[in-house]
Amino acid sequence: MNQDYIKPDNWSIIEEGFHADSVKSSESLFSIGNGAMGQRANFEENYTGETFQGSYIAGIYYPDKTKVGWWKNGYPEYFAKVLNAPNWIGINIEINGEDLDLAKCKSVKNFRRELNMKEGWYHRSFEAILQNGTKILVNIRRFLSLNLDEVGVINYEIIPVNQKAQIIFKPYIDAGVHNEDANWEEKFWEIQDVNYSDNKAFVTARTFKTHFIATTFMQNTILLNGNNLNLIPSKTETASDKIQFLYETNVAQGEKITIQKIGGYTVSLNHKNTQVAAENVIESALAKGYDNLVQDQIEAWAKIWEMSDITIDGDVKAQQGIRFNIFQLNQTYLGKDSRLNIGPKGFTGEKYGGSTYWDTEAYCIPFYMATKDQQVARNLLTYRYNQLDKAIENATKLGFSNGAALYPMVTMNGEECHNEWEITFEEIHRNGAIAFAIFNYHRFTGDYSYIPEKGLEVLIGIARFWHQRATFSTKREQYVILGVTGPNEYENNVNNNFYTNYIAKWCLSYTYDQIKKVASEYPSDYKRIIEKVNITEAELQSWKKVFDNMYFPYSKEHNIYLQQDGFLDKELVKVADLDKSQRPINQKWSWDRILRSPYIKQADVLQGFYFFEDHFSKEELERHFNFYEPFTVHESSLSPCVHSIQAAVLDKMDMAYTFYLRTSRLDLDDYNKEVEEGCHITSMAGTWMSIVEGFGGMRVKNNQLHFEPRIPEQWKAYSFKVNFRNAIVKIEVNHKETNVSVEGNQAVEVIINGESQLVKN
Amino acid sequence: MNQDYIKPDNWSIIEEGFHADSVKSSESLFSIGNGAMGQRANFEENYTGETFQGSYIAGIYYPDKTKVGWWKNGYPEYFAKVLNAPNWIGINIEINGEDLDLAKCKSVKNFRRELNMKEGWYHRSFEAILQNGTKILVNIRRFLSLNLDEVGVINYEIIPVNQKAQIIFKPYIDAGVHNEDANWEEKFWEIQDVNYSDNKAFVTARTFKTHFIATTFMQNTILLNGNNLNLIPSKTETASDKIQFLYETNVAQGEKITIQKIGGYTVSLNHKNTQVAAENVIESALAKGYDNLVQDQIEAWAKIWEMSDITIDGDVKAQQGIRFNIFQLNQTYLGKDSRLNIGPKGFTGEKYGGSTYWDTEAYCIPFYMATKDQQVARNLLTYRYNQLDKAIENATKLGFSNGAALYPMVTMNGEECHNEWEITFEEIHRNGAIAFAIFNYHRFTGDYSYIPEKGLEVLIGIARFWHQRATFSTKREQYVILGVTGPNEYENNVNNNFYTNYIAKWCLSYTYDQIKKVASEYPSDYKRIIEKVNITEAELQSWKKVFDNMYFPYSKEHNIYLQQDGFLDKELVKVADLDKSQRPINQKWSWDRILRSPYIKQADVLQGFYFFEDHFSKEELERHFNFYEPFTVHESSLSPCVHSIQAAVLDKMDMAYTFYLRTSRLDLDDYNKEVEEGCHITSMAGTWMSIVEGFGGMRVKNNQLHFEPRIPEQWKAYSFKVNFRNAIVKIEVNHKETNVSVEGNQAVEVIINGESQLVKN
Repeated sequence: MNQDYIKPDNWSIIEEGFHADSVKSSESLFSIGNGAMGQRANFEENYTGETFQGSYIAGIYYPDKTKVGWWKNGYPEYFAKVLNAPNWIGINIEINGEDLDLAKCKSVKNFRRELNMKEGWYHRSFEAILQNGTKILVNIRRFLSLNLDEVGVINYEIIPVNQKAQIIFKPYIDAGVHNEDANWEEKFWEIQDVNYSDNKAFVTARTFKTHFIATTFMQNTILLNGNNLNLIPSKTETASDKIQFLYETNVAQGEKITIQKIGGYTVSLNHKNTQVAAENVIESALAKGYDNLVQDQIEAWAKIWEMSDITIDGDVKAQQGIRFNIFQLNQTYLGKDSRLNIGPKGFTGEKYGGSTYWDTEAYCIPFYMATKDQQVARNLLTYRYNQLDKAIENATKLGFSNGAALYPMVTMNGEECHNEWEITFEEIHRNGAIAFAIFNYHRFTGDYSYIPEKGLEVLIGIARFWHQRATFSTKREQYVILGVTGPNEYENNVNNNFYTNYIAKWCLSYTYDQIKKVASEYPSDYKRIIEKVNITEAELQSWKKVFDNMYFPYSKEHNIYLQQDGFLDKELVKVADLDKSQRPINQKWSWDRILRSPYIKQADVLQGFYFFEDHFSKEELERHFNFYEPFTVHESSLSPCVHSIQAAVLDKMDMAYTFYLRTSRLDLDDYNKEVEEGCHITSMAGTWMSIVEGFGGMRVKNNQLHFEPRIPEQWKAYSFKVNFRNAIVKIEVNHKETNVSVEGNQAVEVIINGESQLVKN
Repeated sequence: MNQDYIKPDNWSIIEEGFHADSVKSSESLFSIGNGAMGQRANFEENYTGETFQGSYIAGIYYPDKTKVGWWKNGYPEYFAKVLNAPNWIGINIEINGEDLDLAKCKSVKNFRRELNMKEGWYHRSFEAILQNGTKILVNIRRFLSLNLDEVGVINYEIIPVNQKAQIIFKPYIDAGVHNEDANWEEKFWEIQDVNYSDNKAFVTARTFKTHFIATTFMQNTILLNGNNLNLIPSKTETASDKIQFLYETNVAQGEKITIQKIGGYTVSLNHKNTQVAAENVIESALAKGYDNLVQDQIEAWAKIWEMSDITIDGDVKAQQGIRFNIFQLNQTYLGKDSRLNIGPKGFTGEKYGGSTYWDTEAYCIPFYMATKDQQVARNLLTYRYNQLDKAIENATKLGFSNGAALYPMVTMNGEECHNEWEITFEEIHRNGAIAFAIFNYHRFTGDYSYIPEKGLEVLIGIARFWHQRATFSTKREQYVILGVTGPNEYENNVNNNFYTNYIAKWCLSYTYDQIKKVASEYPSDYKRIIEKVNITEAELQSWKKVFDNMYFPYSKEHNIYLQQDGFLDKELVKVADLDKSQRPINQKWSWDRILRSPYIKQADVLQGFYFFEDHFSKEELERHFNFYEPFTVHESSLSPCVHSIQAAVLDKMDMAYTFYLRTSRLDLDDYNKEVEEGCHITSMAGTWMSIVEGFGGMRVKNNQLHFEPRIPEQWKAYSFKVNFRNAIVKIEVNHKETNVSVEGNQAVEVIINGESQLVKN
């Protein structure tokens, strides 16, 4: 049974009632972020119940010393981790001499959380009776400003309901934090400076090893019934890594006392002097004032929604799901900074060291291309271009040469951050997705310039890797790729994974073609690149031999490509025939049992059919889908979206809808029983794909955008927009008609019931 | 280049000259043990140079908390480790106010170590000039008594050469030890009691978790020129985990002062009250006296050599090698206690947690069968019988049922002690060796009684495992075994490893046959076992379906069995064509590169041909040897011995000799550059096999012992004895003739130049 305490609502995530058991889950679900920083929905005031504290700053990481049971050559010595950042949200509260702590109150009533996705703020309210009998009404709103992205704002209001109260606000900033997932229980931050003046305080800390400097700051204002009391702290408590102010107030029964806390981080990634930057940013925020900051936030989110919203009529859970996904993606990454990327947990947890997986290229780029300016997707591509040297270094460590590049499975700064040999060394298909994203970017945006400018060098490094990684089998007289892990991580060290071989062949031939094209159309770029990478026609012909003679495992009996050599040797018992008590197999079975089973963690052959749909006929897709879907357990968050899209293509709409709900409400309903650890951010882009490419039937063919919408029974209507080559295309679909409107000079093909219609501005 | 500082000698291991660089290597090579305890050749006196301190007690272990980077279901939570035991050998020495420390002397001359293998003692001598100018002559002899196996003896003599000296002996016992390989830097011992009286001291400590209690004890006697001074300590220093006595003496120039220290352990495995036991054992040792203890030791080792010695004339390095191997095996395990087993490092180091690998069954049992009473081998078999319940538990954890047993890869007490999925979960062939050893024991000793008494239950548990582990491939219409690691650990998660499939089939059919035999010949045992394991004829028939229809990968082109499915897809570059800079590949290549290469760490298909030699023709052996040997890198200590035996069978005598030297002098010459960490004890039994089965051509056929000796060019003559079915057979071979003599009522067949000759008493 999945969780279902989140109230269905079109625009908000809402929790009602205080349940200590769901605090950690809600801390994940109500997380807020603004692309530059983010945080779990931890309480501001002290809480002694179970909690998972987390604040994160984009681009700030720590290389933790690798922990393994058995070392293998090639493992990275250090392993970059998302770093828990100093706490700036903390406000301890003392009421008539008693600490406010929801774990210790006599009663907590009308507890409510709301994450308002339309306007980009998080609100919490409750009525509590303390052990000393004081009854209080509390309202807290918090947001991370999109416009001033170093600033977060908290408006914390208390009304003593049944008596007057002495209320002491104790806002603090604290760099004495640690990572829950630290390998060796080491501290990651060393304190450089702690200082304060008036209502402002600053703690400057530097990460060990990486030497990132972050100044964590706060500024506080106390208001009574909305009027600034112009208080300064009655007392200041400082420790080596923490500052806490005390504001003592006496509040009459029924009056409202408020602390407005401005806080956040200024970091050495962006500033030479982070202390000065912090002072400046506080000034900017104060100059705006609380009400304007709120108003700006609402407007900024309105702009995001203007381009990225998807509406679903008649199915509030589906509606809430898709908006939650779109909202979280935008909280995580806004595309302003090519040094950043999209961590699989975003700013909602620590799990999975490193920020960048192949998820970015395979799942996220389509979302960002379609809902933002093309520069955003280009920044994501540039991120890999900037890490090309490290990818070449990584391949060299594994015995490759001549500029072959293997991008890491998981990374922060281009260095590998993972250390399971079957993943780190063998899940090499990731290299393919990075090349595919370049192709996909050009296909969707029409912007070829990225390839001669940067992309071709990346493609060449990747092609060289595949060329060296394939080996010639004298037995088959074809090229084989041995010892890999495909997208289906429930198979390790297999030979000739269809997906890997296919994308390797494609990378080689696509790169070959791009070299020829750049040679003829961009001669000066060509000259620069060739001089740099030192490639010859002989090398290209040697690539051609590989891509013309790649081996793919195939079953004549089933008329399908096999996931890998020997797949048909398995006991082919379908998932439906598996006892429910055995699921999820990754929690119930030992690894060897999983490996020798036919069960597929996430789309693998079908991932290939997804990327290269136009290489195969619909009948081929159907045969492969019908063969592999019954063995797919979807125990990766990245799986249901691809199956949803393919089910829609094959007109299996019930199946498509079921997969859609699973992907869109994965975290809200906690399908995988782990949302406490954080949300599955990158798979949220998969949700977007399943609704736009699956139900919307969006494709790019012959440089033109096509739609072939198929609306699930459960919906009355739905609509979305896409930014295609700077033309905004709006699709509105209900069961009777499809409306497509275009702003800009792109023609769009819409196919309804097999009939094609061209739509222009 | 391998090391070569060990002086060639027929009976001793000798080092001359003090080299700080080789201290750790020599600490391994000069290790002593008596089956019940053992220790590295650490100096008694304080040494501030590089050293690896280690004392070990058989059967005492600690379950360290498992350390992995990425947890997988089925991994053991704890991981039993060989435990560094309290130090009883320590004697700090103060001479004219200065600590004796070989790292700090003005000069050290005539430093010499000798491990006298014939008599079972270790001697160290040197001449040192201290910083204070005192020149001393030091002679130390140390041994661990074979007869009183809780007792070790040190005779530490000093002669001040150039002046009189105040010499303070400070013998101590110290339980404040740690393991170099501790996962979390925890302490493994907690102290229970520290006490002393007269010249005796006792520290009783208990291991955390396992609660083994060990009393470490010492008793000291001071002699001047051989006369007991009847000194008692002038001072006693106690700490929470240590006691040190001080004996102050004034020694005239040229006089000899001696401390005789008796020390050792009494443990709760053998005694209720370890303190009382320690007092008793000191009494026994004192009653004997030093000279008698020495004499007893010489006689006890003479008895061992009487049965196990192998002489080689004309090749002192080969002679020293084989005796070192035989000596170490006897130091490690004497077969008195079925709770003990043969750790891969014996008492010479900590590496490899756990004490028992398949090495015991595959390599060690033949040695112990042939050189000792059959009870010793039977004890080794019983060890597994006693752990059957844990093996069933282990299989259950991995999803098997109905009493299927999977013995652990590495163990102390029956629980798995390893945590790499590709080994722990997949290197399941170990189960086969355990069954094979039962067959081998019966074949060699003629003692069938073990099977109805104990062995059959083990065989049934193992057969049930294989029956469940094999799966039916509808494609092949045969049974396959997917996802295994064979003996060649340079392949992981492969399908249909020939060796594994072959031994699985053999286990099933052998067990089937034994059930039938016990049913007809041992009806009461049969009844007891059947009731216990609840087996039916239907289950047996289901086994039969598997063993009659097992699939083996085969190449028609090469006319050989393939190591696994897909082996011929590899790039088949021979080891000889590999650049030397790339060797050893396990230090130079990343794991994926090793895996996709054809290189074989240790005999795999050929291991199957070794076990089941009589199932194949000599031509078949030759084809397989010629195919696989060129791809074998022998980076496991267990590899060259099998190839040496097969090379001898195939009359490739130069190759056989080269492999022999590699296996017999692996540690003395430090082929693998790791002898510092300890010696490769179990592979030493492989050396014995290669000399007896390879050069001696010993086989059991039709219940009879056969020899077909082939003497290497390099030797003038060699001889060995074998205890075959309680008949002692002595083989003496030179280039002209072979003499076989038999004591007992067994006939022995000797084949020379193809001519057979029957030898009887």
